[in-house]
Amino acid sequence: SRYEYVKQFELDDSALPGTWMVVRIDGRGFHGFTDMHKFEKPNDLRAIHLMNRAALEVVRNIRDIIIAYGQSDEYSFVLPASSTLYSRRISKITSTIVSLFASNYTMHWAEYFPDTKLLVPPCFDARLVCYPTQKTLRDYLSWRQADCHINNLYNTSFWAIVHSGKTEQEAEERLRGTFSKDKNEILFSDFNINYNTLEAVYRKGSVIIRQETEVKSVSQKSGEEVVRLRRLPAVLHDDIISNEFWKEHPELLVSSQEYE
Amino acid sequence: SRYEYVKQFELDDSALPGTWMVVRIDGRGFHGFTDMHKFEKPNDLRAIHLMNRAALEVVRNIRDIIIAYGQSDEYSFVLPASSTLYSRRISKITSTIVSLFASNYTMHWAEYFPDTKLLVPPCFDARLVCYPTQKTLRDYLSWRQADCHINNLYNTSFWAIVHSGKTEQEAEERLRGTFSKDKNEILFSDFNINYNTLEAVYRKGSVIIRQETEVKSVSQKSGEEVVRLRRLPAVLHDDIISNEFWKEHPELLVSSQEYE
Amino acid sequence: SRYEYVKQFELDDSALPGTWMVVRIDGRGFHGFTDMHKFEKPNDLRAIHLMNRAALEVVRNIRDIIIAYGQSDEYSFVLPASSTLYSRRISKITSTIVSLFASNYTMHWAEYFPDTKLLVPPCFDARLVCYPTQKTLRDYLSWRQADCHINNLYNTSFWAIVHSGKTEQEAEERLRGTFSKDKNEILFSDFNINYNTLEAVYRKGSVIIRQETEVKSVSQKSGEEVVRLRRLPAVLHDDIISNEFWKEHPELLVSSQEYE
Amino acid sequence: SRYEYVKQFELDDSALPGTWMVVRIDGRGFHGFTDMHKFEKPNDLRAIHLMNRAALEVVRNIRDIIIAYGQSDEYSFVLPASSTLYSRRISKITSTIVSLFASNYTMHWAEYFPDTKLLVPPCFDARLVCYPTQKTLRDYLSWRQADCHINNLYNTSFWAIVHSGKTEQEAEERLRGTFSKDKNEILFSDFNINYNTLEAVYRKGSVIIRQETEVKSVSQKSGEEVVRLRRLPAVLHDDIISNEFWKEHPELLVSSQEYE
Ligand SMILES: Nc1nc2c(ncn2[C@H]2C[C@H](O)[C@@H](COP(=O)(O)OP(=O)(O)OP(=O)(O)O)O2)c(=O)[nH]1
Ligand SMILES: Nc1nc2c(ncn2[C@H]2C[C@H](O)[C@@H](COP(=O)(O)OP(=O)(O)OP(=O)(O)O)O2)c(=O)[nH]1
Ligand SMILES: Nc1nc2c(ncn2[C@H]2C[C@H](O)[C@@H](COP(=O)(O)OP(=O)(O)OP(=O)(O)O)O2)c(=O)[nH]1
Ligand SMILES: Nc1nc2c(ncn2[C@H]2C[C@H](O)[C@@H](COP(=O)(O)OP(=O)(O)OP(=O)(O)O)O2)c(=O)[nH]1
Ligand SMILES: O=P(O)(O)OP(=O)(O)OP(=O)(O)O
Ligand SMILES: O=P(O)(O)OP(=O)(O)OP(=O)(O)O
Ligand SMILES: O=P(O)(O)OP(=O)(O)OP(=O)(O)O
Ligand SMILES: O=P(O)(O)OP(=O)(O)OP(=O)(O)O
Ligand SMILES: [Mg+2]
Ligand SMILES: [Mg+2]
Ligand SMILES: [Mg+2]
Ligand SMILES: [Mg+2]
Ligand SMILES: [Mg+2]
Ligand SMILES: [Mg+2]
Ligand SMILES: [Mg+2]
Ligand SMILES: [Mg+2]
Ligand SMILES: [Mg+2]
Ligand SMILES: [Mg+2]
Ligand SMILES: [Mg+2]
Ligand SMILES: [Mg+2]
Repeated sequence: SRYEYVKQFELDDSALPGTWMVVRIDGRGFHGFTDMHKFEKPNDLRAIHLMNRAALEVVRNIRDIIIAYGQSDEYSFVLPASSTLYSRRISKITSTIVSLFASNYTMHWAEYFPDTKLLVPPCFDARLVCYPTQKTLRDYLSWRQADCHINNLYNTSFWAIVHSGKTEQEAEERLRGTFSKDKNEILFSDFNINYNTLEAVYRKGSVIIRQETEVKSVSQKSGEEVVRLRRLPAVLHDDIISNEFWKEHPELLVSSQEYE
Repeated sequence: SRYEYVKQFELDDSALPGTWMVVRIDGRGFHGFTDMHKFEKPNDLRAIHLMNRAALEVVRNIRDIIIAYGQSDEYSFVLPASSTLYSRRISKITSTIVSLFASNYTMHWAEYFPDTKLLVPPCFDARLVCYPTQKTLRDYLSWRQADCHINNLYNTSFWAIVHSGKTEQEAEERLRGTFSKDKNEILFSDFNINYNTLEAVYRKGSVIIRQETEVKSVSQKSGEEVVRLRRLPAVLHDDIISNEFWKEHPELLVSSQEYE
Repeated sequence: SRYEYVKQFELDDSALPGTWMVVRIDGRGFHGFTDMHKFEKPNDLRAIHLMNRAALEVVRNIRDIIIAYGQSDEYSFVLPASSTLYSRRISKITSTIVSLFASNYTMHWAEYFPDTKLLVPPCFDARLVCYPTQKTLRDYLSWRQADCHINNLYNTSFWAIVHSGKTEQEAEERLRGTFSKDKNEILFSDFNINYNTLEAVYRKGSVIIRQETEVKSVSQKSGEEVVRLRRLPAVLHDDIISNEFWKEHPELLVSSQEYE
Repeated sequence: SRYEYVKQFELDDSALPGTWMVVRIDGRGFHGFTDMHKFEKPNDLRAIHLMNRAALEVVRNIRDIIIAYGQSDEYSFVLPASSTLYSRRISKITSTIVSLFASNYTMHWAEYFPDTKLLVPPCFDARLVCYPTQKTLRDYLSWRQADCHINNLYNTSFWAIVHSGKTEQEAEERLRGTFSKDKNEILFSDFNINYNTLEAVYRKGSVIIRQETEVKSVSQKSGEEVVRLRRLPAVLHDDIISNEFWKEHPELLVSSQEYE
């Protein structure tokens, strides 16, 4: 039609080739959303499991995603430097991932919150950031996991103080200006909590990678049960800051070797 | 932390000021999705109503959206040239709209498809396109409505032929190379259908604008019922190509007058 | 060769269609450059003529440029919304204009500064800015001409005070906090200068447009002199803020009418 | 002024941090330019020296440039991944480099072409391309040097044939479909030219790096001559494809180690 010229106003928004692409989604106004749905404080395990489930479905769906990391109301999905998903078009990649995440979160809500009605549709913002090297990618993931640690240590201390009978304002004042070691100390001496033995899911957040998994199926021919190895996404709570994790999963970084 | 430098890799992606911003979302792989959920052909009214509902919720939520237009598996949301939503950051605007749409579509599915289980999470891509003037914006909307017309005339003819007992291949051959007037003629002489009298929702798609609406409420003081006028989003099936619509709703284009 | 893949790292940088493109160049470190070459203060007419000459050659060379405006060490070149020069690639357009300007400035230096050796190669930065409408384009040009006025009124007052025997510091103090009308008053009462009668080239800067010009040539056939009208770039010192100029040159804005 | 809002239309165009930035300039229409100024074929040494001089001045001026490579009518300037020149703003960097190059080319023309008047101002386009890793940067430079080799081998063969009395068309036909080794063979058997012993400046192009150089000066105190080492840009004709060059100049790649 004579209107088709308007298609030309769509500009190319390809991401720089040879760079890692990270899509980070983050809950919009989850301060209010978590309140409204009475999430437990500081961490609601149902909420964490729902976030992980939505992310798992995204990773199942988008085959190029090599690793994902989530904490609080956010999740980061990593595409390798060699990915050519949607010709690396930023809007396509970002919108596909964020809308998949949102609809999965909504669809699976009732499984994880069987007693809580979903009152408003969850919404997430998303952005795509390029990282040029393995080092900068790892630093990105370390940044998010360090953020998880800092916030969780604070929140754990804060709610321990509050649950012990103080007001939120008193808890805030008690923690103002403290360093990590101070909070560890407070937790230990005042509440007998050894922070480092808390469950890793809270301290480390959640990591999704594709792992060799034994999958049982029944052979159609023989009727016998066969066990095959398949690479399936799984949720871990590992430390991804230290080198150990990356040595254990060398395939994660191999993908960008053609550029480095 | 020492990792925070990675935040700098997020580049500014602001849209050009003074331009209309259009976010178009489009169902990902809806050829398969509509098949899987047995959508009626050529148009499933439940599906249209669900799309409109999801869009309506988006418009309710994002106050800057001034008009939206939907057809098939797509919806376009228009932000005026003067909008400063999220400082006009493209990723923020696009991701917020598309994830809201996706979660609303999922959340309200059962209301519109009470007898059909949602088998897979719906996914939508999204892009933001800038249009510099009222004319180019109107041409954009005309482009989408003309597309609706062309596809719907074709699909209506196609399925009329098929439902009359022909194969899909025969229907395709019958229509190959035909012009609009030929299809109108086929519909009229072979099936006694006057295309122009088909319901506007199919021929024109759906338009959402904010309309003065009488809202009744009970005064807390007097206990009497009061009627107030509020601008609430409503779904229309008007022709938005011709001037008439725009003359009836002069407020739509007024918003960009400071730039033109 | 096996290295050609690196060409893919060149990303598309097209300017939004349907928008006016303005390339503004500005002398790099001209504070020092003008000092070093002993430019007269506040305005050196040789320098202005050289700037205009370089700009004129750019306009002669790049046929899409419809109007240009210069003052101080800067020049703005305007391409109409309908221009498809270099497929609207920002880097191509910007670099071509700025390098043409720089080499012309250098090449013609000796014509305008016959007694001053060019000591260092002149350098200019450049940027391309899109303006979506006639109004925003005109406001852009008004911005630059208003800037010319403000600076020139200040500089004229400043140097008048200095030339009357005060130190630069005294002049600065005398002008601190003054408004336009105060400076006009100072010029008039202290120095008997009516600012508005100063030459327009200083007060208004320089405008280049293509004007119908009588060009004489000798017919090869008849040997007779023929006069033809051609549109040739010419330098004016008009006010481009008020409507008058644009009414006199309606062809300037006509070019974008297909979009507005 | 009330027009200042137009400044907001300047969008941020920063290059991705942590990536090498390469600005490549290329003569505009140098097919015609070299003809008009009767450049020798296939290579005019005066032209090469002038290109190198202009590039040298650019490197002297822009301290962040770490290496530059030139051949034919083009030059590439490399800024390290860690560079923060002009906050990595693409337009600023590109326009500054290209205009410096153009004005230097013009200014020094007469030194290198004492008998040839500069008839038209030279013009260069420029683009900035980001390379995420040392490997991709090296592949970029290899791409340009391989291009130099391919073109020079072709041109050397072509003009040898032409100078031997054939037409240009005959030369073209003779070379059509030949591989490198064929052209080497033609040169050797027909013209007794061993291509590999031709001067490196033609075969390899020109490389500029900063080298420790002994600089003599007279001490102001003692009046004695002192020799100091300074890093000054120098022109080489080395092979930059093989590893040797990079091993000899480890400082070139060190600069990006913080990211890799
Ligand atoms: N109670 C509770 N709150 C949580 C949990 N996980 C996340 N939240 C809350 C804590 C924060 O208020 C919020 C996440 O902080 P953000 O910085 O993302 O802010 P918010 O989403 O409110 O605003 P935004 O739209 O992202 O700018 O979500 C949880 O497991 N339990
Ligand atoms: N049966 C039926 N199908 C519909 C209806 N509305 C849309 N569709 C189908 C027709 C098309 O196959 C599809 C929309 O076409 P698209 O060009 O968007 O393709 P699709 O979504 O498959 O792929 P994409 O991911 O957008 O490239 O949705 C409906 O009301 N009924
Ligand atoms: N004496 C004299 N100076 C002039 C004349 N025209 C321009 N200039 C000087 C005044 C300013 O110092 C300078 C222009 O100011 P800018 O803001 O462009 O600063 P400058 O070029 O030094 O730095 P930049 O690289 O643009 O950030 O040029 C003139 O006709 N005579
Ligand atoms: N005779 C002669 N010609 C040369 C020499 N160096 C470069 N050239 C010419 C050969 C080519 O025609 C031209 C460079 O080719 P380009 O692909 O850059 O094309 P050109 O500059 O004409 O067009 P462009 O504006 O870059 O698209 O310059 C030289 O030393 N001697
Ligand atoms: O933590 P981020 O990256 O979301 O940063 P922010 O401070 O929330 O800012 P924004 O979401 O507006 O980018
Ligand atoms: O109709 P559109 O705009 O979605 O265009 P397309 O041909 O589907 O292409 P894409 O979705 O890949 O932009
Ligand atoms: O006057 P401009 O546009 O050059 O603005 P500036 O303040 O000089 O800044 P820059 O040249 O760094 O954009
Ligand atoms: O060789 P290049 O990179 O200049 O590529 P090109 O084919 O000349 O194209 P353009 O100069 O238009 O980018
Ligand atoms: Mg945020
Ligand atoms: Mg949030
Ligand atoms: Mg958050
Ligand atoms: Mg599509
Ligand atoms: Mg679709
Ligand atoms: Mg569609
Ligand atoms: Mg400046
Ligand atoms: Mg300047
Ligand atoms: Mg200036
Ligand atoms: Mg080129
Ligand atoms: Mg060239
Ligand atoms: Mg070239």
